[in-house]
Amino acid sequence: MNILEIIAKKRDKKELTKEEIDYFIKEYTSGTITDYQAASLVMAIYINGMTEEEITNLTLAMAYSGEILDLSSIGENIVDKHSTGGVGDKITIILMPIIASLGIPVAKMSGRGLGFTGGTVDKLESIPGYTTSISIEEFMNNIKKIGISLIGQTLNLAPADKKIYALRDTISCTENIPLIASSIMSKKIAAGAHKIVLDVTCGSGAFMKNKEDAILLSKTMCRIGKLADKKTVCVITSMDEPLGYAVGNILEIKEAVECLKGNMPDDVKEVVLNLGAYIIKLSGKGDNLEENKKLIIDSIQSGKAYNKFLELVKNQNGDIEYIKDLEKFEKAKYIKPLLAKEEGYIKSINAEKVGKLSVYLGAGRLKKEETIDSSVGFVFNKKVGDKVEIGDNLVYIHANDEEKCEKALKELEEIIEITKNEIQKKEHILGIIE
Amino acid sequence: MNILEIIAKKRDKKELTKEEIDYFIKEYTSGTITDYQAASLVMAIYINGMTEEEITNLTLAMAYSGEILDLSSIGENIVDKHSTGGVGDKITIILMPIIASLGIPVAKMSGRGLGFTGGTVDKLESIPGYTTSISIEEFMNNIKKIGISLIGQTLNLAPADKKIYALRDTISCTENIPLIASSIMSKKIAAGAHKIVLDVTCGSGAFMKNKEDAILLSKTMCRIGKLADKKTVCVITSMDEPLGYAVGNILEIKEAVECLKGNMPDDVKEVVLNLGAYIIKLSGKGDNLEENKKLIIDSIQSGKAYNKFLELVKNQNGDIEYIKDLEKFEKAKYIKPLLAKEEGYIKSINAEKVGKLSVYLGAGRLKKEETIDSSVGFVFNKKVGDKVEIGDNLVYIHANDEEKCEKALKELEEIIEITKNEIQKKEHILGIIE
Repeated sequence: MNILEIIAKKRDKKELTKEEIDYFIKEYTSGTITDYQAASLVMAIYINGMTEEEITNLTLAMAYSGEILDLSSIGENIVDKHSTGGVGDKITIILMPIIASLGIPVAKMSGRGLGFTGGTVDKLESIPGYTTSISIEEFMNNIKKIGISLIGQTLNLAPADKKIYALRDTISCTENIPLIASSIMSKKIAAGAHKIVLDVTCGSGAFMKNKEDAILLSKTMCRIGKLADKKTVCVITSMDEPLGYAVGNILEIKEAVECLKGNMPDDVKEVVLNLGAYIIKLSGKGDNLEENKKLIIDSIQSGKAYNKFLELVKNQNGDIEYIKDLEKFEKAKYIKPLLAKEEGYIKSINAEKVGKLSVYLGAGRLKKEETIDSSVGFVFNKKVGDKVEIGDNLVYIHANDEEKCEKALKELEEIIEITKNEIQKKEHILGIIE
Repeated sequence: MNILEIIAKKRDKKELTKEEIDYFIKEYTSGTITDYQAASLVMAIYINGMTEEEITNLTLAMAYSGEILDLSSIGENIVDKHSTGGVGDKITIILMPIIASLGIPVAKMSGRGLGFTGGTVDKLESIPGYTTSISIEEFMNNIKKIGISLIGQTLNLAPADKKIYALRDTISCTENIPLIASSIMSKKIAAGAHKIVLDVTCGSGAFMKNKEDAILLSKTMCRIGKLADKKTVCVITSMDEPLGYAVGNILEIKEAVECLKGNMPDDVKEVVLNLGAYIIKLSGKGDNLEENKKLIIDSIQSGKAYNKFLELVKNQNGDIEYIKDLEKFEKAKYIKPLLAKEEGYIKSINAEKVGKLSVYLGAGRLKKEETIDSSVGFVFNKKVGDKVEIGDNLVYIHANDEEKCEKALKELEEIIEITKNEIQKKEHILGIIE
């Protein structure tokens, strides 16, 4: 077998065998196959596509290219949750403590933000003291002790995926369903998940810009899950406007804490309930989705969810005084409102543009090496469909640089579109694929 | 402008602008654009194709990526000749002295062999003393003095083409018409040609395996020539069996000398006459092709062509005693005939397989760094269509290793296919595109 033959096959739109895919992943991970050879193969895959069997074989080869976390000592039905990324997405921080409060073990590794989407690890680290980088022993012990641990990716999981993911970014091969599906699923399999619930975001602030693509990606991932014997459910959620009201690390932690206390924006609530109901179902704790949603609401109303979050933060060396009194969190130097100059209804708040603007303020990073500013971001006061009167506060900008604050104000005035006509509130759950 | 947008455009089958192609070539030559980015773009070009305008822009960008040879001090209609490569192809060595003997200046840079095809420079260097690496001043002076110089590529001509050519080889993107056409034409333009005659080989021993592809490549190159204001003619020639009888460096020089003395195999003669007639025409020395062919035959019969070759070799420091007495050339240690075991007609002698077998004996190289063995190769005694009796000598193997000699004997027995049915002699000139 040699890489030239493998490249030529995919170049000519032929199907690669499991052996050929395994060979490519093994030799690329070890460095025998060069970046330029991998780049030409990835481009050929992008243009000519892959069959479901090829995608599954690619997923498994990448998953097994490094260590595989063994979660069997924690339970038999460990469900992992993953989002394909969005703006203002704080669902993991809200939902996973709820799940843990129901006695379902949560072993979750999250990523950092890159580009215009935020990352759960960055958000958690904005809680003073919270450590996302702990040993796997400690991670496992935490779950055994309090039923939950949320950390960053410490193990060398799916190194082939890391290499290919970084390469795709430099050769315009990011937005491609076989490559996205295999990347996500390989990470989940390597992280030891027995079952998987995926939040497939769809809209201006997501990789998938339209519903058709989101459905195709979801079907592809469910099919990989089936072939790899990891039952997978995809919940397709809207990401046209930012999720909830807050965008930015500390601002989102504060909103997440409020959610855990029962003050959930409608869109956040819908996503939490639907993803949560499936996590509970796949964990084997209840087949009735409506009953499962009630369990989630009960957990919040009884304070169990909030208490589990306090327990998690404390156990991970975070200072819970900040959670108990959100005013303690560091505040940005400049906090300015944008007031409406016209009346009408909010027509759109482009999530991608909001995400990019938050990166401009310092809330995210364009390169891995960059540091982030935890205190900056936005707190919206209106959602799409809301009525607006002249002088209404539309959004607060939190910035540490006056000039950037002014520029953000101006840009937000463009981003928040207001129309005279009444706007129908959109559905937040666009579909469920399993 | 940035490379990610350029890659994405070609990935999505869109046409690249002149500015985008110029940017890619400039930044790839300087190293700002990486090999893996170039690899993904080249694969996208391979799969999605290029328009004639894109191919011309790519050609010109590569041609002007380094030095451009200025031949205006030699003449206004300098015609360059190039072959797309074959097995046993000694046409340059025969034809160019003929052209020079007619008073038409010949300024020709040739390449070395790579893969299963031989290279003119390697063949010339098998003449003791012959120097293919001389300064451009000397090259120009030689042409002014005796009307001809045949050398290797000493200048830094079309460095972008060199980089892309080497890259294509490692990413299975060699056999692609836009990439082949732009590579050939960029080198010819950089080498200062005013007009171009191309021998487009077609068959098992060529890049173009069938006539349709050869026609398409020819049309593409003629169109580039037109757009770049370099009148171009393509002569499509058969490369199913080796050209002439000899394959291997010294063996081909000997055959070339015999040809210059008038002993030309039919296929060599047809190619020499047709290419030569067009070179004379494009040089402005005669519009009538049949008249031009007579000029060529006269030059050979009068001894002028042979004498011009002697003059060339002498002027380039070669020892003409070897040319005058071909027996002086070094001979291989083992020279063995293959005798026919059955009677019939020669059905085929696969040129690619013969080429690969000659490389195995040491006549060629698979990697640039390898040295070659000048004395080894084959001298066929039969051509396709020839009648064969049992015991007839089919071919002499010239080898310096006994084991390899035996293996070559066995393989040739497979390669030379004999059939009971009479075989029609094939046309050697398959078409002319201008």
